[in-house]
Amino acid sequence: MAERLLDVVGIGNAIVDVLANADDDLLVKQGLTKGAMTLVDAARAEALYAVMGSAIEVSGGSAANTVAGLASLGGRGGFIGKIGNDQLGGIFRHDIRANDVIFETPSAKSATPTARCLIFVTPDAQRTMNTYLGACIELGPEDVDAGLIAHAKVTYLEGYLWDPPAAKAAFLKAAKAAHDAGRKVALSLSDAFCVERHRAEFRALVHDHVDILFANEAEIRSLWQAESFDQALQATRGHCEVAALTRSARGSVILVGEEVHVIDARPVAQVVDTTGAGDLYAAGFLYGYTGGRAPYDCGRIGAIAASEVIGHFGARPETSLSELLLAKF
Amino acid sequence: MAERLLDVVGIGNAIVDVLANADDDLLVKQGLTKGAMTLVDAARAEALYAVMGSAIEVSGGSAANTVAGLASLGGRGGFIGKIGNDQLGGIFRHDIRANDVIFETPSAKSATPTARCLIFVTPDAQRTMNTYLGACIELGPEDVDAGLIAHAKVTYLEGYLWDPPAAKAAFLKAAKAAHDAGRKVALSLSDAFCVERHRAEFRALVHDHVDILFANEAEIRSLWQAESFDQALQATRGHCEVAALTRSARGSVILVGEEVHVIDARPVAQVVDTTGAGDLYAAGFLYGYTGGRAPYDCGRIGAIAASEVIGHFGARPETSLSELLLAKF
Repeated sequence: MAERLLDVVGIGNAIVDVLANADDDLLVKQGLTKGAMTLVDAARAEALYAVMGSAIEVSGGSAANTVAGLASLGGRGGFIGKIGNDQLGGIFRHDIRANDVIFETPSAKSATPTARCLIFVTPDAQRTMNTYLGACIELGPEDVDAGLIAHAKVTYLEGYLWDPPAAKAAFLKAAKAAHDAGRKVALSLSDAFCVERHRAEFRALVHDHVDILFANEAEIRSLWQAESFDQALQATRGHCEVAALTRSARGSVILVGEEVHVIDARPVAQVVDTTGAGDLYAAGFLYGYTGGRAPYDCGRIGAIAASEVIGHFGARPETSLSELLLAKF
Repeated sequence: MAERLLDVVGIGNAIVDVLANADDDLLVKQGLTKGAMTLVDAARAEALYAVMGSAIEVSGGSAANTVAGLASLGGRGGFIGKIGNDQLGGIFRHDIRANDVIFETPSAKSATPTARCLIFVTPDAQRTMNTYLGACIELGPEDVDAGLIAHAKVTYLEGYLWDPPAAKAAFLKAAKAAHDAGRKVALSLSDAFCVERHRAEFRALVHDHVDILFANEAEIRSLWQAESFDQALQATRGHCEVAALTRSARGSVILVGEEVHVIDARPVAQVVDTTGAGDLYAAGFLYGYTGGRAPYDCGRIGAIAASEVIGHFGARPETSLSELLLAKF
């Protein structure tokens, strides 16, 4: 248990990313949906790895990236997620703890390996993700430390958690523990295809349990089956206290009660790999939010954090975001 | 066995690099010698990993990097080295084969894990390496496929092979197999501290077995215990047919018999991480050499290949070197 209050506890799939450059032809040949996160089984993961180029391995997972980013900004974070008893699990644990994030979830009891996300990065810097959930399917409510949740200002949940069956119960237990302690619950919609898979449940979730919602344009349009961004924006009003809607190079729009704030993206010299852009935007936003900053400032910090992570391969910051913040804000 | 002649077969330690940013303070606190490769045991590797920041994993190993770089340039390569039966070994095998490099060495019979190199990258882009040799110590002469060697124009050996005891015999068997087949033997001196450890043996090796020598300024000065680069250059003459001596931003100097060629470095917008610079220079040089190019051209291709790898984290090219070559040569 943390002695000081934590800013954010993230709950999500504990994943090691395997990133390689790929051309568009390969995506077509392998029947991959560009820009999406697709769930794959062990056999398909092996087959895709076999056609993948030389890769780099870097700890990932949406909520884990967010908490790591928050820590890099100077915030205090915790993470709950399930790794396997293997080398990749050890790497995941090392990396998140190296950011001073509290991570004490017991690893999987079975021999199921740590989850991997095979990411094909095309020359347009888009990432096409293929996730083998592995040990993540063993995450359950018993892994949710209600004491840790109660000690965090915000509990941050990734929509991807709706994929492994037992994690839903963990998700709901965490939301209840947070609200019982007077804390906030944040949700990222994760991916438009994930919203597609769980739309009805996500709508109920947003309305009943979520205080702070993060979504990109495709996700929020999918949630409300909206024809335009503006239609999705209007549909979001009234469902949760805060909604931060991101639009890549077009910046973000923040809803806070009746207020609407429009924030520009931070220009980037070269976009190398967009993996983690949304995760890091959430990190920056929550760093501002838990620090009591105004909505516009929260969005700006989000934009700055996102701009760092899209300038290189991988979804965790390579430079100190707190120093970047001092320089740029 | 390859049907077409290979350009280069590399023999070296099969290593997965673990790279993280670090400040100079950390190096001082941990007693690390900046810029050097230090051998560490399993316990020390664990201890260093514990103080290391969030890292990325990428296949490495000096000779393996060279062969991967050669393949990226369009050359045909093979590799001989020992991995463990674990996830990191699987990653190493995947990455080198993804470059169409022939790699058939059986993995370790014991449970010894795959070798790792913990690399601390300081803000000046210098890398400080700590290698746990793991399964590499099981490489022996039985792993040297004399048929493969006979089918390659050049057999490329890394000086680091002098560290694991059984590998020396593999090294000498390979050199003999190459010469028996009328092929060339190349050696990289690897690291000034490695030269320090094995100076007398390296001098004999260079004189008796090596046709093409690669060394950076510190290494060649250490080999001859020379006061200056020029003194080392003069001392090198007459020992082997070709010597390519690299000097970072100062470019390289190539000795071919009585000829001396001076080649400029290729300017780089931002040096991110110098890991692999020497390995990729050798890749480019050997690509030119095995293609029958003139010495100056070999050095230029080496400079171009090195300039790509120092622009990002990790010691393997992230972009197609053959395309870079077409654009820049």
